[in-house]
Amino acid sequence: MRHVLAALLLASVAVVPANAQKSASDKGASAETGRIIDEGLNHSEVMQTAQYLTDRIGGRMTNSPAMREAEKWTQEQFRRYGLSNVRADPFEFGRGWSIVSSSVRMTSPRPIALTAIPVAWTPGTNGAVSAEVIVAPLRKARDFDTWRGKLAGKIVLITLPDNGSEPETAPFRRLSSEDLGKLDKFEQPKYTPDSVESDLKQARFAREMDAFLKQEGALAWVRMAYRDGKLVHGTGSVAFRTGQTPAVPGIELAAEDYRRLARLAKAGPAPVISIDSQVKWHDEDLNAYNILADIPGSDPAAGYVMAGAHLDSWVAGDGATDNAAGSAVIMEAARILAKLGVRPKRTIRFALWSGEEQGLRGSLAYVGKYLANFPPIEQGGINTREEAILLRQAWPITPKAGHKDLGAYFNMDNGSGRFRGIYAENNPAVVPIFKDWLAPFASMGANTVAIGKTGATDHVYMQYVGLPGFQFIQDPLDYGSRTHHSNADTFDHLKPEDLRQNAVILASMLLNAANRAEGLPRPPFPTKPTPTDPFGYRDDRDD
Amino acid sequence: MRHVLAALLLASVAVVPANAQKSASDKGASAETGRIIDEGLNHSEVMQTAQYLTDRIGGRMTNSPAMREAEKWTQEQFRRYGLSNVRADPFEFGRGWSIVSSSVRMTSPRPIALTAIPVAWTPGTNGAVSAEVIVAPLRKARDFDTWRGKLAGKIVLITLPDNGSEPETAPFRRLSSEDLGKLDKFEQPKYTPDSVESDLKQARFAREMDAFLKQEGALAWVRMAYRDGKLVHGTGSVAFRTGQTPAVPGIELAAEDYRRLARLAKAGPAPVISIDSQVKWHDEDLNAYNILADIPGSDPAAGYVMAGAHLDSWVAGDGATDNAAGSAVIMEAARILAKLGVRPKRTIRFALWSGEEQGLRGSLAYVGKYLANFPPIEQGGINTREEAILLRQAWPITPKAGHKDLGAYFNMDNGSGRFRGIYAENNPAVVPIFKDWLAPFASMGANTVAIGKTGATDHVYMQYVGLPGFQFIQDPLDYGSRTHHSNADTFDHLKPEDLRQNAVILASMLLNAANRAEGLPRPPFPTKPTPTDPFGYRDDRDD
Repeated sequence: MRHVLAALLLASVAVVPANAQKSASDKGASAETGRIIDEGLNHSEVMQTAQYLTDRIGGRMTNSPAMREAEKWTQEQFRRYGLSNVRADPFEFGRGWSIVSSSVRMTSPRPIALTAIPVAWTPGTNGAVSAEVIVAPLRKARDFDTWRGKLAGKIVLITLPDNGSEPETAPFRRLSSEDLGKLDKFEQPKYTPDSVESDLKQARFAREMDAFLKQEGALAWVRMAYRDGKLVHGTGSVAFRTGQTPAVPGIELAAEDYRRLARLAKAGPAPVISIDSQVKWHDEDLNAYNILADIPGSDPAAGYVMAGAHLDSWVAGDGATDNAAGSAVIMEAARILAKLGVRPKRTIRFALWSGEEQGLRGSLAYVGKYLANFPPIEQGGINTREEAILLRQAWPITPKAGHKDLGAYFNMDNGSGRFRGIYAENNPAVVPIFKDWLAPFASMGANTVAIGKTGATDHVYMQYVGLPGFQFIQDPLDYGSRTHHSNADTFDHLKPEDLRQNAVILASMLLNAANRAEGLPRPPFPTKPTPTDPFGYRDDRDD
Repeated sequence: MRHVLAALLLASVAVVPANAQKSASDKGASAETGRIIDEGLNHSEVMQTAQYLTDRIGGRMTNSPAMREAEKWTQEQFRRYGLSNVRADPFEFGRGWSIVSSSVRMTSPRPIALTAIPVAWTPGTNGAVSAEVIVAPLRKARDFDTWRGKLAGKIVLITLPDNGSEPETAPFRRLSSEDLGKLDKFEQPKYTPDSVESDLKQARFAREMDAFLKQEGALAWVRMAYRDGKLVHGTGSVAFRTGQTPAVPGIELAAEDYRRLARLAKAGPAPVISIDSQVKWHDEDLNAYNILADIPGSDPAAGYVMAGAHLDSWVAGDGATDNAAGSAVIMEAARILAKLGVRPKRTIRFALWSGEEQGLRGSLAYVGKYLANFPPIEQGGINTREEAILLRQAWPITPKAGHKDLGAYFNMDNGSGRFRGIYAENNPAVVPIFKDWLAPFASMGANTVAIGKTGATDHVYMQYVGLPGFQFIQDPLDYGSRTHHSNADTFDHLKPEDLRQNAVILASMLLNAANRAEGLPRPPFPTKPTPTDPFGYRDDRDD
């Protein structure tokens, strides 16, 4: 296996000879490994950290008062651990938003409370609004024609109701050896530039729908939760920028409650619901802040390695598995290494990102500020989904002075499950290195190195500018089935043994990376993307 | 298989010769089978019935206004179908209770809404009460000593919090052939009279706890939901009788919310919560009512067969899978048979029971009124759990005149899943008969006859007085995992194809039973129970 990988490495990366990339620390267990395990398993603080972030501070929406409190508290903790250069690094974000109180009731044909949450960054109702509902599924701009003139004075149910879920897989899952084996599969990249325009169209829809509903005189819109079982989420990222606040309040209803309204409306007469949603805007400071803290390296010219997780969350729950878990593990790895008094060759930097849930804003800002230039995306009238789409084509990317300094970046944001290994992000050159580094953790079930790429979190823009950013393989637990972004995302869905193991492994990986002769092998520096299917046609009938 | 069962039948039942129990209708498909299938699958109303009971009427707590509406509406339907002798048969029950509104919030250390429901038949709060919580697990009377003097002015968390669930089986399940095969296993009965005293002690605890909390000056008690994932239930059956209303309000909190409070209390300072629970008592009519309706038989001396399901429910959800499903299937079988204009030998009676959730009260009342005498249980100061325990020993049972008339009773109350066959209730004599009757439904996967006994619903007291009462084998779907008694028990967890199949099979079984030469073979008439382990000792250290 090693031979094959070395050959691949020469063929596809070919930056330095393969044998030069081996160093003493690549052999895996360092002298510190045993001490890291002792500190991380016998003297852990990871659950205390997670408990404070979740139970005490709660859901941490970017730029909300709770997030401000978390920014302050996490810096205090880094300082208490003895880290250096602890700071809140600002970036332009937009308005803070928080829920003061929310109550949604059906009043006719019978009075019952509904399980609901205001959709993030939509306005409140200015007292209770009460009206008949109308089921008017809105998914594309052309749906507006169907409903024009029919929505005035109504509360609009915009989701086409389905028949409910029949979940035939277990909600709580750990990865078997077979599952882990399947992960190690190289998949070729895909790039289809002609999908950009239709993707942009879809991304613009939320704004168009708001304008349409306002013009039609609808009182509010209601969508159906995408999970069954009385879970709600309330996510929504299109409207946090100043000047982009929508006009019409949006509410997410539990699927059971939504479908009940839809059936009653179909049977007639239309049910009446009352929405009393009070939200608060926070415009005192439009910057968001990444929290950064360092363990200084002994060689100032050697650059740094970094680990990060996003501290912000949604607010239906307490942001536990997404991502107090990751934040607490990052902080615990920092605490362990600081407690051990390590003095690595490279600086080890810890990052708690903000604005991740609104399009990886914090890590994107860090990349743009310190690592690489890419053409500015016009931000006046676009939302984050549009921005993410346009970024796919932003060209050229040019490294900044700091680009050479980042030796490795490790991210944790796949829920709260135990580390079972790491993804190599289609970079075969790092596979043998990670195998060595993870060897001491084979007995913890954490030594799989899978070639695959992962997305949708804060290592993405590191990868995007040609830097070695990685995510760990984690047991899924009940992240996908019930906690991710939901009102069940609370501390009790975290597993102490899992988070302790993660902190230990992360600390060990960081120390290996910080002491390595070179930074980790980088992916090839990005070139202008080439369509992977130049002769293909798209079926855009459903655009 | 048939030979073995015939032999068993002679040995254990021996009422009439085995061959005399075969009649024309035992052969399975009658001339009407095809018409039943056509009416039940092509012209079904079962989902419309279930929708009205759930979406429109909603949760139907015994003697609540919603249950009164359901009693009225179901009688109207039976009359519309053309059934005879449609009536509401009263029995003594107690107070009605309904929730007007309920709001539970944590106010310190941070303000959030909690997912909660008042526990049935406990008082409201008379405006909002706000207090610190204290975690004081109360399970046995001896726990009172631990907490005496510490609860005044507090809201008491009475459940010992656990660490949360890790559900490793699928929430939605259908029975495989292998599952069905495993069901056909004879289990010998168990009767241990010396457990009665300790069971009674436990049954009395709720009343003792209320007295203790009142005496200590606690403001309310809070228990943890027994399922995770933000589900709540609010069940509680000990206090519906006039004069038995407790003094202290009880609340059930979603497990996630409960554990958060418990952790915060442990970390300190104790969190403060506010409970505003308005409930209403309904004392205008203390009788509950079973709804009965008949398709008259041609032979007045031949007695009747019956099918039933409970119409009452809890109110966290809309009582869909428990048991609008069963009620709608009973009503649909009645509609199908009435539509077909059948004129069976025996009368077919349809029963919608009330008070099932409070201890099978409706069917127990029917048994006591029409089928058998058993010594009265002193009802002054006991609750239903105590009563159920004392009934185990109530002796002697003496048949009433009506005892001979009931030829068969079929009950539906195992959720909303598809019929896959029937349980023979440890009565081997019915096995070959049911096999014949279910043979036409093999291609619907519904021809398993399993010997096993089932409990906890309205056929139990028929069995108890020696009458042939049965429950169907049903696919579990998500009944156990999330809908049973929970706030997710809504119409969308019902499956149209399942309920249609059930109505067809039930109608066919009833018609076969009504046209059979004799009633179904009965279990032996009950004799005074004999301890099954006369030399055993009980470990009562945990009593």
